Amino acid sequence: MAKHPKPLVISAPDPRSIDLIFTDEKKAELFDRYAIHEVEPEQVNQLDKEQLQNARYILGQPPLSLKTLQTMKHLKCIFNVESNLLNNMPYDYVFENGIHVVTTGAVFAEPVAELGLAMALSLARNVVDADVAFQAGDELWGFESNQSATLLSGSNIGIIGFGDLGRALAKLLAGFRAEIRVYDPWLPESLLKEQGVIPVSMHEVLTTSNTLFVVASVTSENQHFLNADAFASMQRGSSFILLSRAEVVDFDALMAAVESGHLTAASDVFPDEPLATNHPVRKLKGFIRSAHRAGALDAAFKRMGEMVLEDMDLIDRNLPPLRCKRAERETVSRMRSKPVTQN
Amino acid sequence: MAKHPKPLVISAPDPRSIDLIFTDEKKAELFDRYAIHEVEPEQVNQLDKEQLQNARYILGQPPLSLKTLQTMKHLKCIFNVESNLLNNMPYDYVFENGIHVVTTGAVFAEPVAELGLAMALSLARNVVDADVAFQAGDELWGFESNQSATLLSGSNIGIIGFGDLGRALAKLLAGFRAEIRVYDPWLPESLLKEQGVIPVSMHEVLTTSNTLFVVASVTSENQHFLNADAFASMQRGSSFILLSRAEVVDFDALMAAVESGHLTAASDVFPDEPLATNHPVRKLKGFIRSAHRAGALDAAFKRMGEMVLEDMDLIDRNLPPLRCKRAERETVSRMRSKPVTQN
Amino acid sequence: MAKHPKPLVISAPDPRSIDLIFTDEKKAELFDRYAIHEVEPEQVNQLDKEQLQNARYILGQPPLSLKTLQTMKHLKCIFNVESNLLNNMPYDYVFENGIHVVTTGAVFAEPVAELGLAMALSLARNVVDADVAFQAGDELWGFESNQSATLLSGSNIGIIGFGDLGRALAKLLAGFRAEIRVYDPWLPESLLKEQGVIPVSMHEVLTTSNTLFVVASVTSENQHFLNADAFASMQRGSSFILLSRAEVVDFDALMAAVESGHLTAASDVFPDEPLATNHPVRKLKGFIRSAHRAGALDAAFKRMGEMVLEDMDLIDRNLPPLRCKRAERETVSRMRSKPVTQN
Amino acid sequence: MAKHPKPLVISAPDPRSIDLIFTDEKKAELFDRYAIHEVEPEQVNQLDKEQLQNARYILGQPPLSLKTLQTMKHLKCIFNVESNLLNNMPYDYVFENGIHVVTTGAVFAEPVAELGLAMALSLARNVVDADVAFQAGDELWGFESNQSATLLSGSNIGIIGFGDLGRALAKLLAGFRAEIRVYDPWLPESLLKEQGVIPVSMHEVLTTSNTLFVVASVTSENQHFLNADAFASMQRGSSFILLSRAEVVDFDALMAAVESGHLTAASDVFPDEPLATNHPVRKLKGFIRSAHRAGALDAAFKRMGEMVLEDMDLIDRNLPPLRCKRAERETVSRMRSKPVTQN
Repeated sequence: MAKHPKPLVISAPDPRSIDLIFTDEKKAELFDRYAIHEVEPEQVNQLDKEQLQNARYILGQPPLSLKTLQTMKHLKCIFNVESNLLNNMPYDYVFENGIHVVTTGAVFAEPVAELGLAMALSLARNVVDADVAFQAGDELWGFESNQSATLLSGSNIGIIGFGDLGRALAKLLAGFRAEIRVYDPWLPESLLKEQGVIPVSMHEVLTTSNTLFVVASVTSENQHFLNADAFASMQRGSSFILLSRAEVVDFDALMAAVESGHLTAASDVFPDEPLATNHPVRKLKGFIRSAHRAGALDAAFKRMGEMVLEDMDLIDRNLPPLRCKRAERETVSRMRSKPVTQN
Repeated sequence: MAKHPKPLVISAPDPRSIDLIFTDEKKAELFDRYAIHEVEPEQVNQLDKEQLQNARYILGQPPLSLKTLQTMKHLKCIFNVESNLLNNMPYDYVFENGIHVVTTGAVFAEPVAELGLAMALSLARNVVDADVAFQAGDELWGFESNQSATLLSGSNIGIIGFGDLGRALAKLLAGFRAEIRVYDPWLPESLLKEQGVIPVSMHEVLTTSNTLFVVASVTSENQHFLNADAFASMQRGSSFILLSRAEVVDFDALMAAVESGHLTAASDVFPDEPLATNHPVRKLKGFIRSAHRAGALDAAFKRMGEMVLEDMDLIDRNLPPLRCKRAERETVSRMRSKPVTQN
Repeated sequence: MAKHPKPLVISAPDPRSIDLIFTDEKKAELFDRYAIHEVEPEQVNQLDKEQLQNARYILGQPPLSLKTLQTMKHLKCIFNVESNLLNNMPYDYVFENGIHVVTTGAVFAEPVAELGLAMALSLARNVVDADVAFQAGDELWGFESNQSATLLSGSNIGIIGFGDLGRALAKLLAGFRAEIRVYDPWLPESLLKEQGVIPVSMHEVLTTSNTLFVVASVTSENQHFLNADAFASMQRGSSFILLSRAEVVDFDALMAAVESGHLTAASDVFPDEPLATNHPVRKLKGFIRSAHRAGALDAAFKRMGEMVLEDMDLIDRNLPPLRCKRAERETVSRMRSKPVTQN
Repeated sequence: MAKHPKPLVISAPDPRSIDLIFTDEKKAELFDRYAIHEVEPEQVNQLDKEQLQNARYILGQPPLSLKTLQTMKHLKCIFNVESNLLNNMPYDYVFENGIHVVTTGAVFAEPVAELGLAMALSLARNVVDADVAFQAGDELWGFESNQSATLLSGSNIGIIGFGDLGRALAKLLAGFRAEIRVYDPWLPESLLKEQGVIPVSMHEVLTTSNTLFVVASVTSENQHFLNADAFASMQRGSSFILLSRAEVVDFDALMAAVESGHLTAASDVFPDEPLATNHPVRKLKGFIRSAHRAGALDAAFKRMGEMVLEDMDLIDRNLPPLRCKRAERETVSRMRSKPVTQN
C-alpha cells in the first residue's frame, strides 16, 4: 500500500466546502486515503497536464472543457456535491467514456420530509396561529379552538414527485394509516405500487388529497404546472405543501387560493430568494412560511461526505457507485434548477 | 325481534352530549337499537324503580348511590364518556356484581399523538418562530437559520407513560428510524419490548432522550414527579413535550429550564385552565403553547359513539366489552384527574 | 423487606411442571421472591386453613371448592398455566371477589403462527412432496415442477379467529403485501381494522381466500362449523390450514375436499390424538400432517414462567395483571377445550 | 400517432418465449405498441441493414457482432430476459453508445425468497420429516417431537448477498422481530443500514446466524468461498439455506457439515442439474432438497413482460429505464453464471 501513490482527487466543491460536507473524522479519512488537490472551480481547466492525467475523482462541479476531460484519462467519477446539474461540461463525452457524474442531493430528503410533515401537521392543527394567539392572551381553549382541525391519520395524502424526497415522505407517513397517492410521470406504476403507494394521474392526486405535498423537481417541461385551475380542482379545506422549487407553481394563484379560504398552504421556497420585504405572502393568513430551510441542516451536509467516501471506495474496487445518484444521459439536459447561491 | 321491547339505556353523558359523540348515522342506530331515556346526571338516583330495573346500560358517569345500583338488576355496563373516573359511585359494588365500567378516552390518543409530533417537529425546526420572523421580514435564509435545527429521524426518543397515547405516539414514529425508550412502571417489560420499544428507568429516559414526550396520567402518586432535578438531568438542547396533565410536572421548574436555554418545550396543558393572561409562560421563548387543544377534535368525539355501539353489541351478545377501556378495581381509586369542565 | 414473610404461592401446575415453565434463572427468582408450597392439584382442597388463608397466588388449575376459596381471603390470582379453562371451581365466586384467573396460552401464538406459515408456504410450493421425490430420484426440475406453485405475496389470505394466534399470524405476514381478511364474531370491526386486517363475514373469508388459516378456539357454539358446504364454497386450488382444534371442522369433509383435489390442506390437530395408525388422513395426498407440534416448544413453555413472574410483580404492587390473559365472566363457560393430557 | 410507423422490436427471447413472459393482455399491448420482428437469436447478425437500422429494442440476448451494433443506429435498449449476462456482444461499444442492457431477474426475487423462507421454517420445525413419519405411523406427538425445534421470530438471521433477492428476503422477514445481519462487499454500509439490516463481515454473518440464507450471485471471485472452514465457524444447530448458485459453496463440505449433525441445510441448486440419481445428497438427513424450483413460477415469468413494457414506455419518452436492472460496465465481465438451459 505504502509504495503506491495515493489516488488523486481534485477538490472544488463550491458552493460547499470540505469542512461543510465532511466531519473531522471523515475529512481525515479522505486525506488519508487520497491525495487532495484543492483548487477554485474556474482553475480546473488550467491545471497542468500531469495533474489532470492522474486525477481519479473530481469533488465538485467545476466547469470542464472537452480538452480537459480528454486529458483526464483516469477520471472515474465527478462527485457533484452541489446536487444541481449545471450545463458546464460536455456530458456526452463524459457518458461515452464511462465517467460517472453523481449527485448527493439525497441527503436532503429526510430533513425536507420532516419539515414537510411539520408543516402539514401544523396546518392541520393550527399550531403557529394558536401559539401566537396564546402569546397574546387571545387563545381559545379546547374544542372551541379546533373547529377546523383535522387529522392526517387515516386521511388521503398526495405526493407529486416520487424521487428520494417523495420516498422519504412516504416513509415518515408509515404510521399514519393513510392512503398515499402519487403522481410521477417519470416512474412506472409497478414501481410505485411496490413502495406501497397508489399511482394516480395529476387530476386524481389534486382532487382526492386532503394534504398534498409537492416535491417534484423543476424541469424544462413542468414550470408553473400547478396553476389556478389545479388549485381550484383541489378539495375545499385541503392543504398544499410546497417543498421543491417555486417554479413548479403559479405562486400568485397559490396565494389567491389561500386568500380565498379554499386552501391552506405552506412553502419552503419562493419566487425570489431572498424575497422582497413587502411581498404579500408575508402577511397571508393560512400560510406557513419557511425561508428555504428545509434541507440545509448540518447533519445533511455531513452525510454528503460519507456518501462520497462510500462511493469512492466502491469505484476504487472497480464497482459502480451506488450511494450517490447518477446523472443520466436522458435527463441531464432536462433539469433546470438554478445554481445554488447559498448553502 | 319486534315483540321484545328494546333494551333500555339511561343517557346522561354530561359534559358530552349525544350529538357531540354520535354522528347522525350512529345516533339513528343508537335510537333504533335501544330505548333511550335521557336525564340529567343528578336525576338518575331519582328515577323510578321500574326504569332502574330495566336499564341495561348507562351512558355517562352520573352519581350513583348504592341503593340505585342495587335496584339496577339488569345493568351490565356504564359507558363513561367523560373518560375521567370520578369518585361518585360505589365501585366495589359495581365490580363485585360484574357491571363493567368502561371509558372512551382512547379516542383522544391519535389526535393527541399528532399534535405531540407536530410540536416535536416544530421545535426541532423552529417552525413557529421562523414563520413569525418571515411575517415580520426578519427571516434568515437556508443554512444560516438552521444552526440549532435537528432531526427526529434516527434520534433518541423517550416516552413517559405507555397507555393508548404512548402507543399512538410510537405508531406515528414508525417511519423515523428512532430508538424509542419508554418509562412506564405499570407495564411489564416484555409487553413494552413486544411493541418494539425499549423499557427503561425514569433516569434513563430522562438522560438519553433528544425528544421526550410525557403522556403519563396523573395519579395519586406521581404529582410533580418531573421536577427541576429531572429537567437538569436531561441533555442540553433536548425537547420536552407535555401532553397529559400539568400536575405531573413542576411547571415553574419547566419554565426555568426553558428560560435558561437548557431545554425547549411544548405543552398542551397548564396549571390553570384558562390561564392568567399575565402568566409568564405566555412570553417564554423556546416554548410552544397549545390551549388544551390536543384531543378535543370533532372526529375524536364522534369515535366515542362508534365505540359505545360496538361494545353494546358485544355485551348484548353476552361477550365482554373490548373496544372501550375497562376501569380496574386496583386502579380506579388511584386516578386523580379533575372533572372535565369543557369539551 | 426482610422482616416480612414472603408471599405464599400454592404451586400445582399440572400438567406442566415448574421446571418446564421456568428457566433456572426464573425459577430462582420465583423461589427468591415467594414462598412456594408445592402440592398435587387434588390436594389443594385438603390444605390446612392457615396455608389457604396465607396464599396470595395459585400456580396451576387445581380443583377448588367454594369452601376452599372462601378460606383463601388473600388469594389474588390463579395462574392457569394449562391455558384451557376447566369447569372445576366456582367461577362466580372468583369473579365476585376480584380474584383474577389468568391463562398463559399466548406463549403459543408465535410458535403456532410460524408452523402455520411453514405449512402454507410448503403447500404453495409443494416442499414436502418435492423433497420426497428428490430423495427417490423422481424429481422434476425448474418450471416443470411448478405448474401448481403459487405465491403468498400479494395473495388473499384469510384468518378465522383473531385472538393472540390470529394476531401473531398477521404479524408474520406483514412483509407479504397480502390482503388479510378476518372472520371473528367476538371482535368489533373497528378493532380488526386498527390491526390492519379487513373484517369480513364467514362467507367472504371462505370464498375469497387463497390461503385460509383457522385459529378459532372451540366453543360450545362452533363445533364442526367448517363443514362440507364451507369447503365447497372455497376457491378451487386454495389451501386450508388448521391450527386450533379439530372439533371446529368436519374432518371427514375436509379430507374429502382434499381427496377430490378441490383444496390442499395442512393440520396440526386431529379428531383423536394420538390417531389410529390406519386413519385415512395418513396417506392423503395434498395434505401436510403435524402431530400437535405447533405450540409445544421449550421456548414457549419457558415464556410462561416469565409472564407469571411479571404479572405477580404487578399484582404485588396492587396493579392488575397485564401479561397473561384474564378469564372473563361472560366467556368462561363457553370455552370447551379438553384438558391437556400431554405437553 | 397513426401516421408514424410503430417502433421496431427484434424479438429473440430464447430460452424464454413471448408466450412465457407475456400474459395475453400484455402480449396484445406489445404487438399494439410495437412492430415485432421475431427471429432466432443466431439470425440477428444476418438481418438486413434496414431492419437493423430501424430497430429500437432487442428482446432477448442474441449474439451481436460489433458490425451489427454499429448498424443499429437507433437501438436504445437490449432487454435480456434470460437475466444472466453472456459474453456474446461487445459491451464496451454498447456502453459507449448509451445503449442500455437490462435484465429482468428481479422477478425471481419474491418467489425465491418465499421458497427460502419455507425451507427455513420447515427446517426449524422439521416439517418434512414429521409429515413423512406421520404418513408411516411413526410420528411423535407434541413436545416430545419438538426437542430440536426452534423459532425464527426473535432469532439471528444472516443473509449473504443483498441484491433484489436479499432485499425480498428481508422484506418477508419484517414480521419476525429478527436481527438481520448482511454480508455484501459490493454494497456500502450505509445503504444496508437504511434498509434496516446490519452490515457485517463474512466472519460475523457466519458465526452469529441461527439461520443463514445465501443469495449471492456467483462471480469470477467468489467460487466455493463457502467451504469447510466457513461451515465449521457456524454455530452448531444453525441452518444454511442455499438459493443462488451451487458454485458459491463447496458442496461436499456442506454435505459433510450436515452429515455430522453440525448444521441443517436446504438447497435449491446443485453442482449438476439434473443431478446424478446416486448423488449422496439425495439421502442426506437434515437436508431439504428442491430441484431448481425457487424462481421458475409462471407468475414470475409473466412479470418479465410487464417490466419490459414499462421500461419501453419510459425509453420511448426519452427517460432512462427503471424497472429492469441495468448491466454495469464495471461488473458485466465479472458475472459468470452459466447460460440458462431450462426455464
